[in-house]
Amino acid sequence: MSKHKAVKRKVPGLPPGSLVFTGRQKVEVSDVEIVVFSCDVLSKYPLHEHKYPVPSPGTVTWLNVKGVHDVNLIQEIGSRYHIHPLVMEDILDIGQRPKLDEYDQGIFISFYALQFDAIEVKITKEQIGLFLAPNLLIDFQEDADDLFASIYTRLEVLHSRMRNKGADYLLYALLDLVVDHYFQVLDEVEEAMEALETEILYFNKPITRSKIYELRNEISQMRKLIYPFRDVMTKINRLEDEWIKTDTQIYLRDLYDHVNHAVDIVENYRDMINGINDLNTTEISFKTNRVIQVLTIISTIFMPLTVIVGIYGMNFEFMPELHWKYGYGLIWGVMFFIFVFMLIFFRKKKWI
Amino acid sequence: MSKHKAVKRKVPGLPPGSLVFTGRQKVEVSDVEIVVFSCDVLSKYPLHEHKYPVPSPGTVTWLNVKGVHDVNLIQEIGSRYHIHPLVMEDILDIGQRPKLDEYDQGIFISFYALQFDAIEVKITKEQIGLFLAPNLLIDFQEDADDLFASIYTRLEVLHSRMRNKGADYLLYALLDLVVDHYFQVLDEVEEAMEALETEILYFNKPITRSKIYELRNEISQMRKLIYPFRDVMTKINRLEDEWIKTDTQIYLRDLYDHVNHAVDIVENYRDMINGINDLNTTEISFKTNRVIQVLTIISTIFMPLTVIVGIYGMNFEFMPELHWKYGYGLIWGVMFFIFVFMLIFFRKKKWI
Amino acid sequence: MSKHKAVKRKVPGLPPGSLVFTGRQKVEVSDVEIVVFSCDVLSKYPLHEHKYPVPSPGTVTWLNVKGVHDVNLIQEIGSRYHIHPLVMEDILDIGQRPKLDEYDQGIFISFYALQFDAIEVKITKEQIGLFLAPNLLIDFQEDADDLFASIYTRLEVLHSRMRNKGADYLLYALLDLVVDHYFQVLDEVEEAMEALETEILYFNKPITRSKIYELRNEISQMRKLIYPFRDVMTKINRLEDEWIKTDTQIYLRDLYDHVNHAVDIVENYRDMINGINDLNTTEISFKTNRVIQVLTIISTIFMPLTVIVGIYGMNFEFMPELHWKYGYGLIWGVMFFIFVFMLIFFRKKKWI
Amino acid sequence: MSKHKAVKRKVPGLPPGSLVFTGRQKVEVSDVEIVVFSCDVLSKYPLHEHKYPVPSPGTVTWLNVKGVHDVNLIQEIGSRYHIHPLVMEDILDIGQRPKLDEYDQGIFISFYALQFDAIEVKITKEQIGLFLAPNLLIDFQEDADDLFASIYTRLEVLHSRMRNKGADYLLYALLDLVVDHYFQVLDEVEEAMEALETEILYFNKPITRSKIYELRNEISQMRKLIYPFRDVMTKINRLEDEWIKTDTQIYLRDLYDHVNHAVDIVENYRDMINGINDLNTTEISFKTNRVIQVLTIISTIFMPLTVIVGIYGMNFEFMPELHWKYGYGLIWGVMFFIFVFMLIFFRKKKWI
Amino acid sequence: MSKHKAVKRKVPGLPPGSLVFTGRQKVEVSDVEIVVFSCDVLSKYPLHEHKYPVPSPGTVTWLNVKGVHDVNLIQEIGSRYHIHPLVMEDILDIGQRPKLDEYDQGIFISFYALQFDAIEVKITKEQIGLFLAPNLLIDFQEDADDLFASIYTRLEVLHSRMRNKGADYLLYALLDLVVDHYFQVLDEVEEAMEALETEILYFNKPITRSKIYELRNEISQMRKLIYPFRDVMTKINRLEDEWIKTDTQIYLRDLYDHVNHAVDIVENYRDMINGINDLNTTEISFKTNRVIQVLTIISTIFMPLTVIVGIYGMNFEFMPELHWKYGYGLIWGVMFFIFVFMLIFFRKKKWI
Repeated sequence: MSKHKAVKRKVPGLPPGSLVFTGRQKVEVSDVEIVVFSCDVLSKYPLHEHKYPVPSPGTVTWLNVKGVHDVNLIQEIGSRYHIHPLVMEDILDIGQRPKLDEYDQGIFISFYALQFDAIEVKITKEQIGLFLAPNLLIDFQEDADDLFASIYTRLEVLHSRMRNKGADYLLYALLDLVVDHYFQVLDEVEEAMEALETEILYFNKPITRSKIYELRNEISQMRKLIYPFRDVMTKINRLEDEWIKTDTQIYLRDLYDHVNHAVDIVENYRDMINGINDLNTTEISFKTNRVIQVLTIISTIFMPLTVIVGIYGMNFEFMPELHWKYGYGLIWGVMFFIFVFMLIFFRKKKWI
Repeated sequence: MSKHKAVKRKVPGLPPGSLVFTGRQKVEVSDVEIVVFSCDVLSKYPLHEHKYPVPSPGTVTWLNVKGVHDVNLIQEIGSRYHIHPLVMEDILDIGQRPKLDEYDQGIFISFYALQFDAIEVKITKEQIGLFLAPNLLIDFQEDADDLFASIYTRLEVLHSRMRNKGADYLLYALLDLVVDHYFQVLDEVEEAMEALETEILYFNKPITRSKIYELRNEISQMRKLIYPFRDVMTKINRLEDEWIKTDTQIYLRDLYDHVNHAVDIVENYRDMINGINDLNTTEISFKTNRVIQVLTIISTIFMPLTVIVGIYGMNFEFMPELHWKYGYGLIWGVMFFIFVFMLIFFRKKKWI
Repeated sequence: MSKHKAVKRKVPGLPPGSLVFTGRQKVEVSDVEIVVFSCDVLSKYPLHEHKYPVPSPGTVTWLNVKGVHDVNLIQEIGSRYHIHPLVMEDILDIGQRPKLDEYDQGIFISFYALQFDAIEVKITKEQIGLFLAPNLLIDFQEDADDLFASIYTRLEVLHSRMRNKGADYLLYALLDLVVDHYFQVLDEVEEAMEALETEILYFNKPITRSKIYELRNEISQMRKLIYPFRDVMTKINRLEDEWIKTDTQIYLRDLYDHVNHAVDIVENYRDMINGINDLNTTEISFKTNRVIQVLTIISTIFMPLTVIVGIYGMNFEFMPELHWKYGYGLIWGVMFFIFVFMLIFFRKKKWI
Repeated sequence: MSKHKAVKRKVPGLPPGSLVFTGRQKVEVSDVEIVVFSCDVLSKYPLHEHKYPVPSPGTVTWLNVKGVHDVNLIQEIGSRYHIHPLVMEDILDIGQRPKLDEYDQGIFISFYALQFDAIEVKITKEQIGLFLAPNLLIDFQEDADDLFASIYTRLEVLHSRMRNKGADYLLYALLDLVVDHYFQVLDEVEEAMEALETEILYFNKPITRSKIYELRNEISQMRKLIYPFRDVMTKINRLEDEWIKTDTQIYLRDLYDHVNHAVDIVENYRDMINGINDLNTTEISFKTNRVIQVLTIISTIFMPLTVIVGIYGMNFEFMPELHWKYGYGLIWGVMFFIFVFMLIFFRKKKWI
Repeated sequence: MSKHKAVKRKVPGLPPGSLVFTGRQKVEVSDVEIVVFSCDVLSKYPLHEHKYPVPSPGTVTWLNVKGVHDVNLIQEIGSRYHIHPLVMEDILDIGQRPKLDEYDQGIFISFYALQFDAIEVKITKEQIGLFLAPNLLIDFQEDADDLFASIYTRLEVLHSRMRNKGADYLLYALLDLVVDHYFQVLDEVEEAMEALETEILYFNKPITRSKIYELRNEISQMRKLIYPFRDVMTKINRLEDEWIKTDTQIYLRDLYDHVNHAVDIVENYRDMINGINDLNTTEISFKTNRVIQVLTIISTIFMPLTVIVGIYGMNFEFMPELHWKYGYGLIWGVMFFIFVFMLIFFRKKKWI
């Protein structure tokens, strides 16, 4: 469960805007990749000697910051592009609630990229911060692997739509990619639920208890991330065209629909995992019922027999049956009759 | 459960507007049926050599596209009628959330036609996309059988109301048909619930556990579809008369009431299936209780008897009772008395 | 449960506005009663030779239509008083969601009169349609017995307030009557719940399981009817004074409060029936616990005794105790001691 | 449970505004106390010979009506102070939903005073009606003991704030008093819950089942009363200063906060009583588990012993062990070993 | 549970605005610390001889009142700074719902500082009242230790941002500190839940029942505090810049996001603790199931053996087997076969 707490809180009492990294460091060295592109130009180079590009109209400047644990680097970028101290704090404070804040200098969006690890029944999340200013987009992350590599690949295509559009469309493309991953995670969670269901119903392994519990927690975690992300999307769709151009708005509206769909699915999964839990509980009660039936059948058959054989083990002087020639055979017959009768009786009651 | 995942997600990272069919192909060959009608004309013919009809005022042009898996065809229709790339993507992306999007060129509505398979306790759903432009209605589907055949039948009637009205009324008629099917599905689901209830209460078959679970999931699925569909209906009712004429609005308002009713029913079914689940659980506990009562009765009667007969099977030298003439008979009497006494006792406690 | 489905759906594909009666016919012959009244006039007569009264200012014309299964009759009335085809369809479509629709010609309200059958734990509902036009009120029902007889009785009183008021006040009076019946039904449902509670707590009859289940369903049904009815009441209170005069509005606002109260009560009953269900489940577990305690006590006492008597039933040559004079008596003593000790032990553990 | 139904419904079909008392009569004779006060005057006298005081500006006239079962008296007061017939009906109709209605002549507020009877686990409620007109406040109740005595005591203090303020502040004072009582009841309910909790956890008395059930119902009842009362408070805070003067509004806003707090507490209690119920259920299952463990331990120890002693009770001719000198001793040894081994085994499994 | 009731209610009937302290006294002597600071001045001194500082523009005056049980002191401060009597009452009435009230003289905010005691599974809360007037901030508390010491430490830094800002920013800093503590408490609660989870899953100690119950109550308590606190934050963000300057608003908006995050977490914990409770219940049922399986296995193996040995303990004259040479050996063989067969049988059924 410690997975739910990727967050190490700041010490209370620090002045607001204090820059403290609260997550887990995942990459050794921080790394800033700079991409500058326009309709017909595309260049990509690593940050070198603190030379930060100046965003200029007609081109889009994209800074891909990997390794937010490097507080100095973040501070440098922040002061270079006039990012508000509170934004800087939010970038470093891993475990934030997804949010969108509008400042005079730009828009800050914080959200999570998700991945599902089916074996450990665990969703890993990577907080991503996006800062959108005119002709500039900066994304901050600790280590979202090549999450954004595919974006660059698309940029390389000469007549790619993205090349003709502004930083707002690039923002959209990044968000869209993350949302696509959400659906992948959701599909994997669904497969995990199907597996659980089969275990319960067909293989009778009620050891699945802790798995159900953990999956329930993971779904609950996703829910906690995805609802505020929907709010973020709502806010993006209400931004003025100063930030988001009209033709990009259509795409963002479409993305909003997708996020809404994801919300529906998560809500539905929550219902389903509760259903699985109920099914498991019922299955256990039912199994207990069956076991007790077996016990009762065994007892009902053998307890009377024990008494019967006990009777003829008594040492009374005067027990006429003991001297009968066929007494012993008769007892076998009586016991056999009781045995068969009981079997038929329980069969009739559908216990066997 | 794999039924809940008719959806095969696109690979994340594709540019938005990429046309990829994500559902299951159900028909061999795609097929476009063209219906053009007005007050006094009605013609129907298959699409031939890519000759697409031009919608003209005074007549309604209806394209019935079956087999959306044919990406080229969809693309062709899209470019012919100026449909936005995102709409094209949505048509092909099976498993969408029901939605209505308004574009400059037309209205796009996406929703599901439902059918219930009582034997497999499974609701099958078919995604339908409708594109409404002036004097034009296009419906996209993979294979909704003759869902729309009845509409054409109604068009054939000369003075049918539909003949005098525009594409908006045709849109209404298609939606109305789908909603009518919803109620059919709901009735069948209710019958399935009644059957479950009877099984639990009268035939004592707690094997119904997995059926309850599955029905619960199906109802939960329906809920997931029908709530956003209600939102779609709300949005339709708010469209300006550019798209929906005033006299058609009355019909759509009425349809909205029906969808609202369906929502109520689904919500009610959810309550009911939970009730059925509880009933089943209680029934199992109760049965366990009965079985344990039987076990306890048997044990309470025969355990003391076992001890009694054991006593007189002991080999002590000095056991006066063994030499009594009627000792043996007396023991029978004592045992019989205990037996009857216990029966009366348990009868009084209402255990028997 | 088939009681929840008094509705027979229309065949999908029928054109909207098609008149098909979907309920159960309850009266043999349809019957229209006409009441015309004003401040000083009151006449009542059956419909004769299709002569429909013309509503005129200063008087109120009230048509009481019983037996909506007669489609022709409904159609005749509809066309006579210019009722919209969709209203006609709604009148005949039994099982509608309570609703209010405003048309140019008049207001249409659809809702249910309820009655509770305590023996079968079942609420019967009768759909009522009201059409309010200037100086005219028509009510449509299949068979709501003498539900409205009391209204006429009140009209007969010369200086009755109703005589001085318009069709809107008559509408109010009819709604008020139906709501009064709701409270009666609610009281009867409460009595049924009290009975269940007593059965569970004092008479220990867990056979009440299916009764709890059915009552829960009935309450859930009522909830489904009463929430939309509250919406209807909200809409009525927002109608312009063209339809509802200002002094009638005060009465309708008061009625709205009553309906709201009924909603609260239903919601409360839902809580209570869930509580009853929980109580029953706990009661069963508790009883199981008691039964197992008895079993354990019996086993704990008699199993050791069985072993003891078994020991002295063994046939070893060298068993000194067997030859003791008071061996047998001693064994009785030991067994008695064990028996008493166990009883005291379980008494201390509060099991007995 | 009949306590939830202090209400005797009116016969359906009575004209609205019919005056019928529907509660239980609690006082023998109705009684009207008249208090007239201003900054420097205070007089109090019983109603005498139907002489009703005329409210005049500068003074506040307060009528304290006790015993609303006297329909004639209520009617007299109603007509004397021009109270709307629907208000009169509401005053007499005990079991109303708390509400505020604004009429031309005055404001009518209906709500409940509560008291908790810890022994019977029952909340008693007394419906109070307040009618506020310019310079006049009338309160109607059947028997709220000396609930309002303390208000009068405060009036007697010469420079009491209340003396300088109008009827609206008096209204506030009455409401404030009732809300203070709510908190007392809530505290007592909490104590009852604490007692239950202790019973379950420390004294193991699962007989608390019906108490839990009843407390749950009572909390649910309170919830039903307090939510609409909050709505009443919201409405009061929105009244224009014609009715409530600006400086009284500050007090009423504060009171609204208190009511809101009470709502939070009730909601929290609901959670807690559900938690108590769950705890109880778990406690019962756990106890069952323990009992079955005991049974299993006993059986596992003594059943093999029974077989062993049975073996040497067999009468085979050739059983060498029987003739061994230390056979008998050996058997004791074996049995003792099994006994001890089992104890250790179960101790290891933490069953003992 | 008495911890939930740190509140001792006022006696109902006291006039509103009566000053009665309702909490528990925690410090011996009340103590007022005065801090006056501006850009370049900072002084701190205890209140001496009732000399209260006069707030002046350009500087911020901060009164830190510790020990609200001293009613006279509070009254003195109240009259000195023109605080409304209702605010005074709220400061003394411990157990209030978090709230913000706007008066002409200033803003009053009431909320709670939290701390978690992991050993007693208990959240301790300290009510804090803040009064914000132009250039003045007063905080009232009984004993929040050095909660605010860190604020003063930050003030001591010469170029601290706080020194340049007004009383509104100081208000923000105090709130921010309290919210930071919330997250600490939430982390500790999460650790407590993790511990519970491990206990249930790995150490099989179902004695954790009461701990689950108590943690659930504590989470429910937090929820009760944090929801209204969010409302307070919403209200603060809507205050006009008369009270909160524009550049402080950005900080408060950020704080609002944090509180919202805390709300999400509490809601999530509620889900999780319910999940833990379910897990525990299932775990108990499952354990019961296992125990009963053991019982059934033992019974099924040894009951038939008991009958077999009983048979050959019978004393019939004619029992041929008794005289067989290998009879005794054969019986051992039969019993051994049954024993092994049963073991294999149960192994196959996966019971062992």
